[in-house]
Amino acid sequence: MTAITNPGAKRMVLLSGRAHPELAQNIAAELGTELVPTDAYDFANGETYVRFGDSVRGADAFLIQAHPAPINQWVMEQLIMIDSLKRASAKSITVVSPFYPYARQDKKHRGREPISARLISDLYKTAGADRLMSVDLHTAQIQGFFDGPVDHLMAIPLLAEHVRSVVDVDNVTVVSPDTGRVRVAEQWTELLGGCPLAFVHKTRDITRPNQAASKEVVGQIEGRTCVLIDDMIDTGGTITGAVKVLREKGAKDVIIAATHAVFSDPAVERLSSCGALEVVVTDTLPVPPEHQFENLRVLSIAPLIARAIQEVFEDGSVTSLFNGRS
Amino acid sequence: MTAITNPGAKRMVLLSGRAHPELAQNIAAELGTELVPTDAYDFANGETYVRFGDSVRGADAFLIQAHPAPINQWVMEQLIMIDSLKRASAKSITVVSPFYPYARQDKKHRGREPISARLISDLYKTAGADRLMSVDLHTAQIQGFFDGPVDHLMAIPLLAEHVRSVVDVDNVTVVSPDTGRVRVAEQWTELLGGCPLAFVHKTRDITRPNQAASKEVVGQIEGRTCVLIDDMIDTGGTITGAVKVLREKGAKDVIIAATHAVFSDPAVERLSSCGALEVVVTDTLPVPPEHQFENLRVLSIAPLIARAIQEVFEDGSVTSLFNGRS
Amino acid sequence: MTAITNPGAKRMVLLSGRAHPELAQNIAAELGTELVPTDAYDFANGETYVRFGDSVRGADAFLIQAHPAPINQWVMEQLIMIDSLKRASAKSITVVSPFYPYARQDKKHRGREPISARLISDLYKTAGADRLMSVDLHTAQIQGFFDGPVDHLMAIPLLAEHVRSVVDVDNVTVVSPDTGRVRVAEQWTELLGGCPLAFVHKTRDITRPNQAASKEVVGQIEGRTCVLIDDMIDTGGTITGAVKVLREKGAKDVIIAATHAVFSDPAVERLSSCGALEVVVTDTLPVPPEHQFENLRVLSIAPLIARAIQEVFEDGSVTSLFNGRS
Amino acid sequence: MTAITNPGAKRMVLLSGRAHPELAQNIAAELGTELVPTDAYDFANGETYVRFGDSVRGADAFLIQAHPAPINQWVMEQLIMIDSLKRASAKSITVVSPFYPYARQDKKHRGREPISARLISDLYKTAGADRLMSVDLHTAQIQGFFDGPVDHLMAIPLLAEHVRSVVDVDNVTVVSPDTGRVRVAEQWTELLGGCPLAFVHKTRDITRPNQAASKEVVGQIEGRTCVLIDDMIDTGGTITGAVKVLREKGAKDVIIAATHAVFSDPAVERLSSCGALEVVVTDTLPVPPEHQFENLRVLSIAPLIARAIQEVFEDGSVTSLFNGRS
Amino acid sequence: MTAITNPGAKRMVLLSGRAHPELAQNIAAELGTELVPTDAYDFANGETYVRFGDSVRGADAFLIQAHPAPINQWVMEQLIMIDSLKRASAKSITVVSPFYPYARQDKKHRGREPISARLISDLYKTAGADRLMSVDLHTAQIQGFFDGPVDHLMAIPLLAEHVRSVVDVDNVTVVSPDTGRVRVAEQWTELLGGCPLAFVHKTRDITRPNQAASKEVVGQIEGRTCVLIDDMIDTGGTITGAVKVLREKGAKDVIIAATHAVFSDPAVERLSSCGALEVVVTDTLPVPPEHQFENLRVLSIAPLIARAIQEVFEDGSVTSLFNGRS
Amino acid sequence: MTAITNPGAKRMVLLSGRAHPELAQNIAAELGTELVPTDAYDFANGETYVRFGDSVRGADAFLIQAHPAPINQWVMEQLIMIDSLKRASAKSITVVSPFYPYARQDKKHRGREPISARLISDLYKTAGADRLMSVDLHTAQIQGFFDGPVDHLMAIPLLAEHVRSVVDVDNVTVVSPDTGRVRVAEQWTELLGGCPLAFVHKTRDITRPNQAASKEVVGQIEGRTCVLIDDMIDTGGTITGAVKVLREKGAKDVIIAATHAVFSDPAVERLSSCGALEVVVTDTLPVPPEHQFENLRVLSIAPLIARAIQEVFEDGSVTSLFNGRS
Repeated sequence: MTAITNPGAKRMVLLSGRAHPELAQNIAAELGTELVPTDAYDFANGETYVRFGDSVRGADAFLIQAHPAPINQWVMEQLIMIDSLKRASAKSITVVSPFYPYARQDKKHRGREPISARLISDLYKTAGADRLMSVDLHTAQIQGFFDGPVDHLMAIPLLAEHVRSVVDVDNVTVVSPDTGRVRVAEQWTELLGGCPLAFVHKTRDITRPNQAASKEVVGQIEGRTCVLIDDMIDTGGTITGAVKVLREKGAKDVIIAATHAVFSDPAVERLSSCGALEVVVTDTLPVPPEHQFENLRVLSIAPLIARAIQEVFEDGSVTSLFNGRS
Repeated sequence: MTAITNPGAKRMVLLSGRAHPELAQNIAAELGTELVPTDAYDFANGETYVRFGDSVRGADAFLIQAHPAPINQWVMEQLIMIDSLKRASAKSITVVSPFYPYARQDKKHRGREPISARLISDLYKTAGADRLMSVDLHTAQIQGFFDGPVDHLMAIPLLAEHVRSVVDVDNVTVVSPDTGRVRVAEQWTELLGGCPLAFVHKTRDITRPNQAASKEVVGQIEGRTCVLIDDMIDTGGTITGAVKVLREKGAKDVIIAATHAVFSDPAVERLSSCGALEVVVTDTLPVPPEHQFENLRVLSIAPLIARAIQEVFEDGSVTSLFNGRS
Repeated sequence: MTAITNPGAKRMVLLSGRAHPELAQNIAAELGTELVPTDAYDFANGETYVRFGDSVRGADAFLIQAHPAPINQWVMEQLIMIDSLKRASAKSITVVSPFYPYARQDKKHRGREPISARLISDLYKTAGADRLMSVDLHTAQIQGFFDGPVDHLMAIPLLAEHVRSVVDVDNVTVVSPDTGRVRVAEQWTELLGGCPLAFVHKTRDITRPNQAASKEVVGQIEGRTCVLIDDMIDTGGTITGAVKVLREKGAKDVIIAATHAVFSDPAVERLSSCGALEVVVTDTLPVPPEHQFENLRVLSIAPLIARAIQEVFEDGSVTSLFNGRS
Repeated sequence: MTAITNPGAKRMVLLSGRAHPELAQNIAAELGTELVPTDAYDFANGETYVRFGDSVRGADAFLIQAHPAPINQWVMEQLIMIDSLKRASAKSITVVSPFYPYARQDKKHRGREPISARLISDLYKTAGADRLMSVDLHTAQIQGFFDGPVDHLMAIPLLAEHVRSVVDVDNVTVVSPDTGRVRVAEQWTELLGGCPLAFVHKTRDITRPNQAASKEVVGQIEGRTCVLIDDMIDTGGTITGAVKVLREKGAKDVIIAATHAVFSDPAVERLSSCGALEVVVTDTLPVPPEHQFENLRVLSIAPLIARAIQEVFEDGSVTSLFNGRS
Repeated sequence: MTAITNPGAKRMVLLSGRAHPELAQNIAAELGTELVPTDAYDFANGETYVRFGDSVRGADAFLIQAHPAPINQWVMEQLIMIDSLKRASAKSITVVSPFYPYARQDKKHRGREPISARLISDLYKTAGADRLMSVDLHTAQIQGFFDGPVDHLMAIPLLAEHVRSVVDVDNVTVVSPDTGRVRVAEQWTELLGGCPLAFVHKTRDITRPNQAASKEVVGQIEGRTCVLIDDMIDTGGTITGAVKVLREKGAKDVIIAATHAVFSDPAVERLSSCGALEVVVTDTLPVPPEHQFENLRVLSIAPLIARAIQEVFEDGSVTSLFNGRS
Repeated sequence: MTAITNPGAKRMVLLSGRAHPELAQNIAAELGTELVPTDAYDFANGETYVRFGDSVRGADAFLIQAHPAPINQWVMEQLIMIDSLKRASAKSITVVSPFYPYARQDKKHRGREPISARLISDLYKTAGADRLMSVDLHTAQIQGFFDGPVDHLMAIPLLAEHVRSVVDVDNVTVVSPDTGRVRVAEQWTELLGGCPLAFVHKTRDITRPNQAASKEVVGQIEGRTCVLIDDMIDTGGTITGAVKVLREKGAKDVIIAATHAVFSDPAVERLSSCGALEVVVTDTLPVPPEHQFENLRVLSIAPLIARAIQEVFEDGSVTSLFNGRS
């Protein structure tokens, strides 16, 4: 008798960094469980210390971390937590980063720039991550930066469902705030019943060098409710500038919809005063009380992430949550 | 005396696969050198054999391969050549793939799809490539798929310079054939002096399920010369469909400009009969006589690639060729 | 309560490329299951598209692909399928390549050649393969090219069993068609009861440069039934040349036995007219109707592969299928 | 029906190299199982051959090897065994090296030295090890040399428990034999109830170059029972030198306690004649009859390792064996 | 003519992060060169942007970054800079981190902790670093964490030279502030001519649970000038506590010497009021005006690092700077 | 001025392990240089210590080690030396192992065996080797085990040249001692002018189980001088058994030629008394005085290795030494 056997059940644990504990708790609640108690603090010189309170040996670990400012702090904490899980013998480590850090540095815009979005994927992998879960990546190509499975969740259907409940769909135009989001705006038009599509476009007559760039709207928006979409709102300059030009060009109303509420200064001021009927976002990033304003609507992303985690743990299909799309 | 020294000059060699030898010869001619003589053929069962005729030991090797159909054949030949160079002690191996293979499979559009564009980068790396050089990547994010330096060359300035010489710039609109190329179209408008921007958009009223999708043009094109741009022309369906709708909506003329002339059947037939004033492409892919037609203009990409290779070999700056852009 | 558990059953799925679907179906039938439905086709420019119809998340995936001409096409399709499985979260990926591609390029015969057989193993690994299963490798050392477990199946016992049923074992000589297969021929002699061994040998008197090479038989074959063996028959030149010389030197009959029926042109013509009593092969490669001829006998390899897959999935012993040999 | 399922039990196997089979057998006995029968011998030129007698496919393998002289022989045997396990499809491979080889070469003391302790970890990893288990590492930092989980077991509590049973704790001083073990000595003081701490210190007045180094004791030892501790005893020169100086400086008794009994010549002679009351070690290394002497006490490490293996296999907590310490 | 040659000179560039630009400028000045101009700033949400102003293609790049608080910020900036250098085709990348970040988390003190010091090395490597240079590592074993050459510079001789100039060497005792630095203190005694050695030791009588730990001095310090040494001073609690106990136990004077002036709050207050005669440190970390106090002496580390960089670039010997020690 | 340049000469250093210093010295002498002085010894417990006496920073290092018994000792020493070179910043490391260790374990002969020859290549690579140089590999496929360039030198032409000088080429038959070396024997026939080929074959009538295996000669050897070839002679059992049977079957004379003189007991006794006219080997392994006997002829391999090293260092062609063969 040269072997010992046992039935070998699977075990799942949820863990969270300190960037946005409410989100992690909500996800845990959706799954009917609790987060592994975790000791995390910074030493006087800023070095981060982490220790998990329960054994994670042999477990499928899902490590949830959000990435608001100070974003480098939360990335490092996350990497250190992954290292802890690896050295504590977790069977698999899934990194749940609802807002993928450095997503906008996904290519070299100019020579001698980094591609920090790829770097982030490599750092996750090096620390010990086996799989990545994220929501509405800035560009879908980021899926290809990680060497392993990526579960790419979509919040757009969630946002669109809300928008449908507050607008007259027959009088809607979806608007991209610049030329880079037109493809995504097109996805929105499908979710809103095939409505028209427009975009805002910064133009500069390069033959007259001293003239400032002006914004133009390409597409049909006059008298219509404009759903101005983006994946994230950072300082809000581009999107509130677009609200202004849409209103000048005769839009009836403007609704802003975006997945990630980065809300760096002075976003809240700009958004609350730009004249948009409603600003709808999700809580992939924390929206603290001081960032909230009257016509802001924050949808909870926790149910979506919880269902995706469950599908992963039970070897189901994440894709099925989005009708096969990825 | 326990060491032997020598002055250690650098040596560069150029090598080519069989997919498009003319391009490689033109590059070599621009550089004032010749390709390393190479024995390459297929065995009866299709296995590819490769052997280089000169020593490449210690040399900086630049391996040029184009990727027309049968594309899998040329990828495998390229990988085998990289392996040969690695095992023959080349000091560094730069893969020059002017048309990056599988660039369109750069993300999972649906669940359980591959990300073949990332796979290609990993296969290059595994075989032994140290650096990658390519022209007008389908999406710039592909730069981030390769774990090492990528020299991303731009043919758009070359194409735009030609277009400027044949149109009245004051009456031009740049048109993207779909929502995915609007950002690139915007780059064209800058090169053409700040002209207007438009795009073609397939729309479907999803509340009336049996109605076919119709194409709309968003933007100002009536009476104007439209420069319809794309990174590649494959079967030409999308782009010639765009020509049709532009002409129906009142465009004066249409010029098609694209970097990569994939020209799969029935692209040549469609392009030659679509009514475009001119179709301008480069020779990143071979354009054999049977693919040429009256108003096709093929620009040579060899000078650009040759200059980039020289900058790489001499530790200069490739970025400087494009005013710092990457 | 900080963990969720479930019993964690194991799940196996079978998948197939397009090179030889009958073989994969036969293996599935032996195992009492079906292949995962798969969408696979080539775009106009030859790029291969693949998507699996069912979830493979958490499953032990066995991906069956054969490698007839055009072999580079099937290798690339296989790599893309592996990438899909990896990104779709398969728990493990076993590549089943009954005929290992590029097996003959397993060393540098001359300087500046590739070692494509090693490259193939590295490409499999990079794409995401965990394990490799193959039949009668050209050289057993190829097992060492893959960085992971290799299940090396042997078809020789199957072929030998058939041969025993059609010859008088007391009057048999096993013959290697050249000097490189003598070791394998020796294995055959054991399976045929300790019969004599011979080989054909190309000789050239290098002191007389203009004289052609002549073939000699070394060993006792006069009046005997010769079992001429090889691992594969490609164009059939060597093996039918050996039949000719054996018959000239007085062999009574010749039976040809080989595992892999590559059958490149003009193998079928040569084999059907060479005078061999029977040609016996397996279906590790497809043998289409136009490759079949009167005295060809094709044995099914599916039962052997099916049993090996079952042993792997059930953590049994593949070696036990071959009395401990590997 | 495109999948086959089975319940998927876990299976553990224990294997042993030839360096210290008694230890492995004792561990197996503690676990109520037996070692996998193994064929291991050296060829005439010293090449090591290994083959396991039972299938290890799909099993969690624990490979036990000790590292007495000739240590290089046992390291190589261990690496070859790991390779066998990997190629035989073990699901996971835990290397159990109670005495970590080359632990003292854990940094470069001078330029152009190796860091062999890191090399050993990398060799284990390359051969195929997933996890490492060891006892009382020379420096705890070696945990960080292995890229994966390390279970660091502590024998000090075991040794201290024994010491407590033979001394009057109120009259004990823990002594480090040099400046490098003072931290470890401090851990001992805690286990012995907060007793005093001292160390031996080699000093040399560098202003008087021809004077020999002399040994000094720093700390309170006069009239006390000194527990002289170390992680290992190699030739015994340092530790028996410390006994001498302690006795000269007025110590009442000396007890030597160390985890690893390397006992290279002339350790046994030195230890047995140095005047220590007792020498207590564990059997992480074999202590053959010719190395045993009157006041030597060898504690069995097998129960501790067996419990740790059980915790690993059952996804329990190894840390819990040591009150959370690692 | 199938090759182009050129003489191939070597080129070195120095780059700096934003954590401590003065140090980098001083190093550049020592070497008679300037830092590569660099654009580095944080976006509103904290994401770091970096771009180098000159081409680094083909150059040996030395990237200098210090690690004061907020340390995670500077680590991430450094990683992003390494990524930029790699993608900009630097020939080699040497990371110069005078104070190695997370050095104190060099082992698991308890279960489920990370080993962040190893993680840092792996992150450097993944981002693209080829070599590491650091000063007075917290433990020398950290050299073994990096998979590549590590140049470990020593500031202790520099500090000791200064101390020799201000004390009467015949009346000096070197004191370690705890049991973990005794080995380093021993190195100091050699540099100070073979003087006595002592250490401070926190002790707790665990048989009397409610009694607080008390500090004891082990060794001869009465009436002597104590040189209290450490590798770093963080909040200063341990070291100023040691000053207090040394003075209570009769020390004549205390001088504090440490390489790294972390100086987290309330270190400056503690140090300036602890009664030490002098506190001597180096500028491996920035010592801003608000951290300076009367009896603080800051020695410049730039000449040492500059010489080491020069030795590396010129293929000389870094070890020779320290008489072969490493 | 942000860069420093220097002309950047190349430097080569030769280093040697302790297994066969004469060979390394002979190679150095051929190259007109000396070995780097090296400190290498074993500690009491068998751990190996190594330190190089001169700086190797930036140099192309060639590390020569032979592999006689105790072979595991020499492999470990070699790995430790590679680690030293890597950490001491050698620019490139070429491992020169004239007799490749564990070459015969190049495949799994049975299940659950290692593939130690592949393991050796991986260990070299992990320790830091960039390139491998070896002589007459047991099977040429071992070239494919190493992930990098392999310079495979051939001693057969050297041996053959000697044999031609002592035999009448018109009356020679080349004989393989078993079925595995027939291909190599064929290479010999070409070097000896197209002479006949034969092999010795162990046969066993498996239908008569109790009968011992008998040896047969297949091929023409009566009255001829037989050149019995092999890549290595270990205990000499097979080859001297072949001499016996050749003489019994009427061979006139037998000359034994092999590259690697492993000469394990009782090889010397067997060879000296077997009746062979001459035994010719090279000194890839040491042949100490006690292994020499009257009709043994040892050819020096140093000139060949020295020329190959020179070609590598000067970026020439190693293949050219063998007319393109590899």
